[in-house]
Amino acid sequence: MFVRFAPEHTVSRWEREKGVTILGPMSLIVTGTIGIDSVYTPSGQAEKVLGGSCIYFCAAASFYTKVRMVAAVGGDFPKAFWKFFDKFPAIDTKGLEVRPASKTFAWGGKYHENMNSRDTLFTELGVLMEAAPAVPAAYKDSAVVFLANSHPGVQMGMLSQLPKRKLVVADTMDLWINNAKVELERLLRTIDGVVLNYDEAELLTGKKNPVTAARHMLKDYGGKKGLKFVVVKKGEHGSLIVHKSGIAALPAYPAEKVVDPTGAGDTFAGGMMGYLAGAVKKGGAKAVTLPVLLKAASHGTVAASFNIESFSLDRLMKLKKSELVKRHKEFAAMTRV
Amino acid sequence: MFVRFAPEHTVSRWEREKGVTILGPMSLIVTGTIGIDSVYTPSGQAEKVLGGSCIYFCAAASFYTKVRMVAAVGGDFPKAFWKFFDKFPAIDTKGLEVRPASKTFAWGGKYHENMNSRDTLFTELGVLMEAAPAVPAAYKDSAVVFLANSHPGVQMGMLSQLPKRKLVVADTMDLWINNAKVELERLLRTIDGVVLNYDEAELLTGKKNPVTAARHMLKDYGGKKGLKFVVVKKGEHGSLIVHKSGIAALPAYPAEKVVDPTGAGDTFAGGMMGYLAGAVKKGGAKAVTLPVLLKAASHGTVAASFNIESFSLDRLMKLKKSELVKRHKEFAAMTRV
Repeated sequence: MFVRFAPEHTVSRWEREKGVTILGPMSLIVTGTIGIDSVYTPSGQAEKVLGGSCIYFCAAASFYTKVRMVAAVGGDFPKAFWKFFDKFPAIDTKGLEVRPASKTFAWGGKYHENMNSRDTLFTELGVLMEAAPAVPAAYKDSAVVFLANSHPGVQMGMLSQLPKRKLVVADTMDLWINNAKVELERLLRTIDGVVLNYDEAELLTGKKNPVTAARHMLKDYGGKKGLKFVVVKKGEHGSLIVHKSGIAALPAYPAEKVVDPTGAGDTFAGGMMGYLAGAVKKGGAKAVTLPVLLKAASHGTVAASFNIESFSLDRLMKLKKSELVKRHKEFAAMTRV
Repeated sequence: MFVRFAPEHTVSRWEREKGVTILGPMSLIVTGTIGIDSVYTPSGQAEKVLGGSCIYFCAAASFYTKVRMVAAVGGDFPKAFWKFFDKFPAIDTKGLEVRPASKTFAWGGKYHENMNSRDTLFTELGVLMEAAPAVPAAYKDSAVVFLANSHPGVQMGMLSQLPKRKLVVADTMDLWINNAKVELERLLRTIDGVVLNYDEAELLTGKKNPVTAARHMLKDYGGKKGLKFVVVKKGEHGSLIVHKSGIAALPAYPAEKVVDPTGAGDTFAGGMMGYLAGAVKKGGAKAVTLPVLLKAASHGTVAASFNIESFSLDRLMKLKKSELVKRHKEFAAMTRV
C-alpha cells in the first residue's frame, strides 16, 4: 500500500487508480446539513437541487485539504447527487450516513430583488429531527473542527467525540440565539472561533456596531478556554475579523454576476477553514494569528465569489484550483494599500 | 522674501511668523459649499455648526497638501467659525468670498437609528442661488481640481477658468442625476474621475450592481478625454474603485464610535485628493494609476474615520498628522492579505 502526504488536488490519476492513500495536511472535520434545496432568485430558479451547509463547506475546503464530513441523508437522497462526491475525491464520506427510512432535509427559499435578504418558503427537517450522525472511529483524531449551523447542544455533542481537537470554529443562527442561548453561550465558552452574520452578532449582544458586538463576544465568552476570534460576515459588504490581538477587515470580492447567494457563507467558511487547517498543521492552534485569519478569510471570500455565480454547487463542481489561485491573487492585489 | 516648497504641516512657527511663502506639492483647488449645519443623530445634536462640502474636503486635504478654496458665504457667517481657518493654515482662503448682503447656505438633517440614512429637515440655499464664486487670478494655474457636489453646469463653469488643470474629479448627487442629467453627462465626458454614492451610481446607470454601474459609466462617459475612474462610496461598507485598468476595493475603517456621519464623503474625497495631488506632482495625471488610487482612497477612508467621531469639524480640528499616519498604518495592516 502506498501512502502519500499531500493536498488532495495534487493527487495524480495514477495515484487515484492505484488507490494510494492520501493524507491531507491536517485532519479537518465538519458536521452540518446536506439538503435538497429549492431556490428562487431574480436570476431564475433551481428546484430540488443539492445543498446544505456541509456540502458547500466541503466543496470549498477540499481545494485546500482533505475534509471529513459528518452528516446524514434519507432514503430519498437522489442518486444523481452522488456524482458530486465523485468530483471531490478530497471529501471523505465515511461519516455520511444514509438512513433509508428517513427523509433528507429539504429547504426552499426566495431571494428579494437585491439578493441581500430572502424568505424561507418551507423547511422539512427530516433526518435533522433524529439522532445526530455519529463520528466514525477513524475520525476521532481530527484536529481542526468546523461545526456548521445546528442546535448548540448538537454541536457540543459532536465536540465530546473529538478528543484530539486543536482548533474548533462554529457557525450559528438567530433561531439558536433566540431559543437556545444558554447552550450557545456554553458552546462559545468552549471553542476557539465563531463565524456569524452581522445581524446575528447584533442579536446575540444587543450591540448595533459589528466591531463592538464582536468585542463583547470576546469579552463575554473568551478567557483562557473560550472564544479567541469572531468573524462577522456581511455578505456583499465583506467580512470583519475581531481577534483578541486586533481587528482585520475585508471587502467582498467585487462580483458582477450574482445568480444565487445560497451557501455563500458556508463556502466562505470552507475556504477559510481549509486554509487554517494547513496553518494548524504547521504551527498548532497558536498559528491561528490575526494575519493568518485574514489570509484564511480572503481564501473564503474568493471561494464564495465563485459559488454565487450559479445555482447549487454547479460552479464549485466545475471550479479548477488554478482559477481559485488566480482570483485570489487578483483579490489580494485589489485590497493591497 | 523666503519661499520654501513643502507640505504645509511641516511649516515651522518661525516660517509662519516671518511670512515665508510655502508652496504645496501641487496646487489643489476645490469648489463647493460652506454651510451652517444643524444635525441630529442618535448620539446627540449640534445646531448651527460649521459644515459644507468644501470645509470637510479642505480640512482633510490640508494634511497632505496646500489647498485652494473657492466658495462663498453670506454676511451672517458666524465670526466664531473663522477660527477654523486659523487651525488650518494650509487652506488658502483667497477664493472665499464673503457677500455681506447674502445668506450663508444652511442645512438641517436628522439621521436614522443606524446612521446609514438621513432625512433633510431644511435647506436654505442662500448664496448658492447667486452667481458662483469667481476663481481668483492667483488660482488659475491650479493643476488638480475637485468639484464638490453642485449643479453640473456650475461645475463645468469652474473648469473653464482653470486652463492648467491636469486632473479633475467631481462629486454629484441624485438631484442633478434627476434634474440635470444632460449637463452631468457632458461634465463626465470632460473630467477624469467621479466620486459618488452607490445609490447615485445605480440611479445614473440603472444598474443594480456597483461594479456593473461603474463599468457602464466608464463605457458611456470614458474615451480619450472623459472618465478614467469611478469611486463608489458605500459609507460604513467601504468603497470600490473601478479604473479602466481594473478594480480595487476597500472596507471602511472598522469604527466603533460613530457620532455624526455628516461630511464623511467630503472628508474621504479630501484625503484622497490630497494624496493624489502629491502623485500628480511627481508624475502628472498619468501617475493616477489603480494602485495609486487605492492608496489615495485608503487615506480618504482613514481621514473620514476620524471625522465621524464628533459633530461638525470638531475632530478634524483637533487631529494631528501623527494620528492620521498611525491609523493609516493600522488600516493598511488590517486589509493586507
